[in-house]
Amino acid sequence: MKHAASEGTPSSMSELNRSRIIDFLFHHGVSSRAQIAKATGLTAAAITKITARLIDYGVIIETGTMEGALNRRSIGLKFNDSQYQVIAVKFARSLVQIGIFDLSGHSTAIHDFPSVNNEDVVDIVSQVKEFINRAIETNPAIVAVGMAVPGPYLADEGRIISVTSMQMWKEINFKDEFTQTFAVPTFIEHDARSGALAQSLFGMHTDENSLAYFLIGEGVGAGVIDRDNLISGSRGVATEIGHVSIDVNGRPCECGNVGCLERYCSTGAVKAMLQEPGNEGIVEDLEALLPREACKRLFQKSDAGDAEAQRIVREIARYVAYGCINIIYGYNPGQIIIGDIIAEAGNTLLDEVRRIVAERVLPDLMKSTAIELSDLPTDATLSGAAAVAASQFLRNPSRFVAGMDNPRQ
Amino acid sequence: MKHAASEGTPSSMSELNRSRIIDFLFHHGVSSRAQIAKATGLTAAAITKITARLIDYGVIIETGTMEGALNRRSIGLKFNDSQYQVIAVKFARSLVQIGIFDLSGHSTAIHDFPSVNNEDVVDIVSQVKEFINRAIETNPAIVAVGMAVPGPYLADEGRIISVTSMQMWKEINFKDEFTQTFAVPTFIEHDARSGALAQSLFGMHTDENSLAYFLIGEGVGAGVIDRDNLISGSRGVATEIGHVSIDVNGRPCECGNVGCLERYCSTGAVKAMLQEPGNEGIVEDLEALLPREACKRLFQKSDAGDAEAQRIVREIARYVAYGCINIIYGYNPGQIIIGDIIAEAGNTLLDEVRRIVAERVLPDLMKSTAIELSDLPTDATLSGAAAVAASQFLRNPSRFVAGMDNPRQ
Repeated sequence: MKHAASEGTPSSMSELNRSRIIDFLFHHGVSSRAQIAKATGLTAAAITKITARLIDYGVIIETGTMEGALNRRSIGLKFNDSQYQVIAVKFARSLVQIGIFDLSGHSTAIHDFPSVNNEDVVDIVSQVKEFINRAIETNPAIVAVGMAVPGPYLADEGRIISVTSMQMWKEINFKDEFTQTFAVPTFIEHDARSGALAQSLFGMHTDENSLAYFLIGEGVGAGVIDRDNLISGSRGVATEIGHVSIDVNGRPCECGNVGCLERYCSTGAVKAMLQEPGNEGIVEDLEALLPREACKRLFQKSDAGDAEAQRIVREIARYVAYGCINIIYGYNPGQIIIGDIIAEAGNTLLDEVRRIVAERVLPDLMKSTAIELSDLPTDATLSGAAAVAASQFLRNPSRFVAGMDNPRQ
Repeated sequence: MKHAASEGTPSSMSELNRSRIIDFLFHHGVSSRAQIAKATGLTAAAITKITARLIDYGVIIETGTMEGALNRRSIGLKFNDSQYQVIAVKFARSLVQIGIFDLSGHSTAIHDFPSVNNEDVVDIVSQVKEFINRAIETNPAIVAVGMAVPGPYLADEGRIISVTSMQMWKEINFKDEFTQTFAVPTFIEHDARSGALAQSLFGMHTDENSLAYFLIGEGVGAGVIDRDNLISGSRGVATEIGHVSIDVNGRPCECGNVGCLERYCSTGAVKAMLQEPGNEGIVEDLEALLPREACKRLFQKSDAGDAEAQRIVREIARYVAYGCINIIYGYNPGQIIIGDIIAEAGNTLLDEVRRIVAERVLPDLMKSTAIELSDLPTDATLSGAAAVAASQFLRNPSRFVAGMDNPRQ
């Protein structure tokens, strides 16, 4: 991922070069100084100087000798992903989670807050602050906080402008609440866009610079990386695929639009589907369940081979496929990665999605678009919150490592 | 616009700095060396050296003294947009146009080829080649050719994969036919994306780095610039808004998808609308007219105050509005600029588009999204083909100006 800040003017050249070396090691694993020189175009002298300082601060480490070209041995360098840690916060509608991650996306601890109701929103914000302050006080390795919030989120103002069924979240100004609150820098990003960053930084992919993360859970959204650029829009409301209409004469949405995809395949839409005539009884005690609990029960039954449950999963898949088709013509990513609660429906869902997409998309495009389920070890939005912070570290390391940018040290 | 090539390694630093100075003068008009230094961060010595060479080659010129800060007088510099010219080619379904443009998007000549039928496609390609070769031979100011082609266009392979109602265009490999054919470099881009470049380089806009050009003519597509990045996708098939479905149960499209926007508001769709029961007679001699001719007649009648014609224009506007809403949630541009044949319906169309968008889009987003008609003096796709070539010149000037990159000269 390239970032605006990497278009540095000569005054920040040393930071730019530092970032390029760290970024290369992050993506390429153990490498020699010669390999770094070849990839970055920096001189051997510059690399010796910069890597010495990065080693001093523990950002990278030497790994012993490795085989070089022409059998010459050289010393390997690698990114030291466990030296620094970040706090990741996932805000979903009813679910708030906090994780502690290293800079490669491995979580060392995850904390679930109790399910949030509309009236608990203000209180949960206080609890999150308290938890983070305590974590930073007790863990000096923590250098940043990353947060993932549902959209449409106005990044410039710091507020969510519509949250289906949980309108209280609109009252929270995330920028005001969090960005000046902690002893370390805090970064806030849209949830699906965070997921795309996580897939790009931490996931398996065909091309880290061309992928869409398709979040389908309590909300529906997408994050798209197009040739190194995380598509954001003028105010941070781009790639809101959940509010791109699939049927201009369809179901009205709380946002004011009609036929929003979110109305057809979010967890809430699935619960409503299970309440329809003919579908009663597929999930027992349905009324008492939260939508995400109803989905989990449904997917368990589908996995166990229940034909009726599988029929519903395929019906959900149809809408997921329509979303994929809109993503293909909208963004033409090399890969679409489906994640969050609905992705737990597994291959029954994925196979049907691929089948319907193949029916409706031009063969040349179908061939060059992989559609997969997320493979991240933890939830992509929570990992995404970590990725939001980690990507800032890769881009601007001296901001997080005290003293590293002081030329006299 | 930033480009991948501007992320230069030190070996191309002189070209990068040259490009930054030209780009600054292109966008900011007459400026002093001090203003350039302030904006680019380059030293006075570097600017003196680079501008001297650019003046030698006529790329920029001195304009005499101008008022500087603290009333100090300094010499103004400006981009010399008429020193070099480009050939622009617009390929639409039935219409091929060639224009000669200066680097600021002013056309000095425009040539229309006769209407193309499916069986003329191969012949028209030969005619275009012949025309361009003759123009280059007789006009030494021409330094590049830019071409705009309808999509979905696989930029890597050089071919269009679907063209509603004109399938012969699929048989042409534009890369093979044109990129090695002329004495000057040739660049090919998707038509709507070319239009976005033209709006960004040559048009009036609130923000050249955040806009969508919404092409609605014989085909329907979009080009989107998101924070300096022209969204392209992995194969050049992004922002194909004409094949983003607005109704998954709607009209089947030749591409295999269902409910594609192109099926509702392209010129062909408008002609079909005029043939529907109840609409007969609004445009006379309809059957004999090409779709674009039928549209022009309809818009003339609407402009003259005919209520029935205005009713049809508002019906078209409804679908254009649905496209705008999908563009807003898909890309969140600061501005949507509607262009090509359907934009000729003027304010009757625009007012209705704005009305419907306001009904369905969240007020915060509506407020920060301007919707306008294209203001370019010539067709945005033809200007766009010129912009494709001009943007390459701004990015990599020494490729087009023989000798400029030779350090010993």
